[in-house]
Amino acid sequence: MSATARRRAALQKVLADQGLDALLVTDLINIRYLTGFTGSNAALLVRVVGESVFCTDGRYETQSAAEVPDLTRRIDRPCDLALLAAAGGRVGFEAALVSVAAHRDQVKAAADAELVETVDLVEQLRAVKDEGEIDSLRTACAVADRALADLISDGGLRPGRTEREVGLDLDERMRRLGASDPAFETIVAAGANSAIPHHRPTSAPLRRGDLLKLDFGAAVGGYHSDMTRTFVLGNPADWQVEIYQLVAEAQRAGREAAVVGAIGGDVDQAARSVITDAGYGPQFSHGLGHGIGLQVHEAPSLARAQPGIIRADMCVTVEPGVYLPGRGGVRIEDSGVVRAPENDQGVPGYEVLTLTSRDLVVL
Amino acid sequence: MSATARRRAALQKVLADQGLDALLVTDLINIRYLTGFTGSNAALLVRVVGESVFCTDGRYETQSAAEVPDLTRRIDRPCDLALLAAAGGRVGFEAALVSVAAHRDQVKAAADAELVETVDLVEQLRAVKDEGEIDSLRTACAVADRALADLISDGGLRPGRTEREVGLDLDERMRRLGASDPAFETIVAAGANSAIPHHRPTSAPLRRGDLLKLDFGAAVGGYHSDMTRTFVLGNPADWQVEIYQLVAEAQRAGREAAVVGAIGGDVDQAARSVITDAGYGPQFSHGLGHGIGLQVHEAPSLARAQPGIIRADMCVTVEPGVYLPGRGGVRIEDSGVVRAPENDQGVPGYEVLTLTSRDLVVL
Repeated sequence: MSATARRRAALQKVLADQGLDALLVTDLINIRYLTGFTGSNAALLVRVVGESVFCTDGRYETQSAAEVPDLTRRIDRPCDLALLAAAGGRVGFEAALVSVAAHRDQVKAAADAELVETVDLVEQLRAVKDEGEIDSLRTACAVADRALADLISDGGLRPGRTEREVGLDLDERMRRLGASDPAFETIVAAGANSAIPHHRPTSAPLRRGDLLKLDFGAAVGGYHSDMTRTFVLGNPADWQVEIYQLVAEAQRAGREAAVVGAIGGDVDQAARSVITDAGYGPQFSHGLGHGIGLQVHEAPSLARAQPGIIRADMCVTVEPGVYLPGRGGVRIEDSGVVRAPENDQGVPGYEVLTLTSRDLVVL
Repeated sequence: MSATARRRAALQKVLADQGLDALLVTDLINIRYLTGFTGSNAALLVRVVGESVFCTDGRYETQSAAEVPDLTRRIDRPCDLALLAAAGGRVGFEAALVSVAAHRDQVKAAADAELVETVDLVEQLRAVKDEGEIDSLRTACAVADRALADLISDGGLRPGRTEREVGLDLDERMRRLGASDPAFETIVAAGANSAIPHHRPTSAPLRRGDLLKLDFGAAVGGYHSDMTRTFVLGNPADWQVEIYQLVAEAQRAGREAAVVGAIGGDVDQAARSVITDAGYGPQFSHGLGHGIGLQVHEAPSLARAQPGIIRADMCVTVEPGVYLPGRGGVRIEDSGVVRAPENDQGVPGYEVLTLTSRDLVVL
């Protein structure tokens, strides 16, 4: 059974549990997850009993035959309405992703079906990765690791270069190493800018004595890595060493707390308490981490008061930070997978996929 | 009055005509158009009478103060619900862009307001550009022109290079010339691949004697250019010259028909009939063009049976093509602005913004 067939089977169980006869999937990322299709227009009707049907338009006839060989395919448009016209029973739809106008058209087209609101059914399945997905994430992390290592060894992080030049350089390296794109807009934040958690690269030059924060990732085969490293250009000042070591300690505490059965909010708290105890609590102004996969932000969330339970093979970031406005900030972030205590990979707990050193590197 | 204030005033007229008291704008592109805000979370309530209000969250307090200086600002979240709680009367919402789940929450929050479905109110305003927008598009086109010229003069279009290498090269050049990103995924299609209208770059090498189709654009300051040129690597065969000249003639007919007052479908037909008369009608399998601006595809549409009337200062592409499966295809595409017969710019008709030569270039 293919990975996508296994995922559809898992979804069928969820649908049966919810008393649904089928789910109309129109979100393209969810469709990719369930079928392998990478085009820009499609719909999928997953039936609990009977044949599931995939629909796309004429532009994708050849591509869909190659990518979706194991499902009944229709070539028609609008795809969602074509599938609904032949559907019956209680049919779920993705209420957080379908617009009011599209839904009105769907209700009209669904002659024999009753449309039922659902939220995050496929997204919840996506939170737990299979080994193929973890391999894809591992590759996406390796591309980011390699691009950063090459950037450093080629002298790319030197005083005088602008944040924007460094960002373009890093992005180009990731693309040349096989990334389809950066996983998100690369953050290069030098000096006081490093105190802005999500800073856009500017024409500000890197300067000796400054902190330099790089937050970036690679998209490879649809999967997204996410990593942050912070450097010092030249000899670090005491305050820079102090917050660096504090964030590194918090990050380790976060990784150690990211185990199967933990609560998302408790993992956040494990890292946060290290920072709070040192008196920098207000300077850690965001959550500890988030799921990664076909999207760079997806379930589960590691943040204050998040009640979700961490399950085996969830992939999450761990990324505490301390930001001192006007001076600079440090964030250290890994991507990794939470492994079951007993597992084939021999790595219990949080298996880090981003392998770049977390030691304070003085450039 | 600022450009964004003029746009909001135009929207207020539309709302009054529709019997609405206000419009809740939640689409980020429409918010950018109406306010200048470029962050990732916001909502805007445009009132016909009384003060319009902009809302974003705490991350964007500083940025929104700089980008939206002329509107009452609230810092709160969820932004849409915060604005609705203080709204009254008949309040339109963007029915094609708001999800069923978000709408349900909005209805609950809108204590004193009646929510009314609207579609494309802001998008219709966006179809007619002001001179500032046209300047932005001109810059985005110039970046694409310059990147292509440099690519050619540096010998970047040579046999042996792969489609993917050429695409990365072109994208890097656009970024270094100031593009925030390519306007869309750059198409590099060599040989038989050029017969696929929307082909993704592969590891296929460029070969002597082949057609080479490049469809690309630059995003600059939020505005998107779009251009296609087709080359021959080495001496062209007769059939290549024949379809090239045919497409060039059709493209000229399309540009000449793109005048104020024309119907979208008629502009398409003007170009299409040239190709149909030559016996290649079925090989021109897509519409003639589309609006460009804050999105790379927006109103108006130049395609078969489109009833929309072209108005002064609409910006559209003109891009006929002929595709011969297994052999190769030619597309020639410009971005331009439709000028009124009497206008300050002295250019009646279709003013081309992409200035790269349309002559058949033999590399």
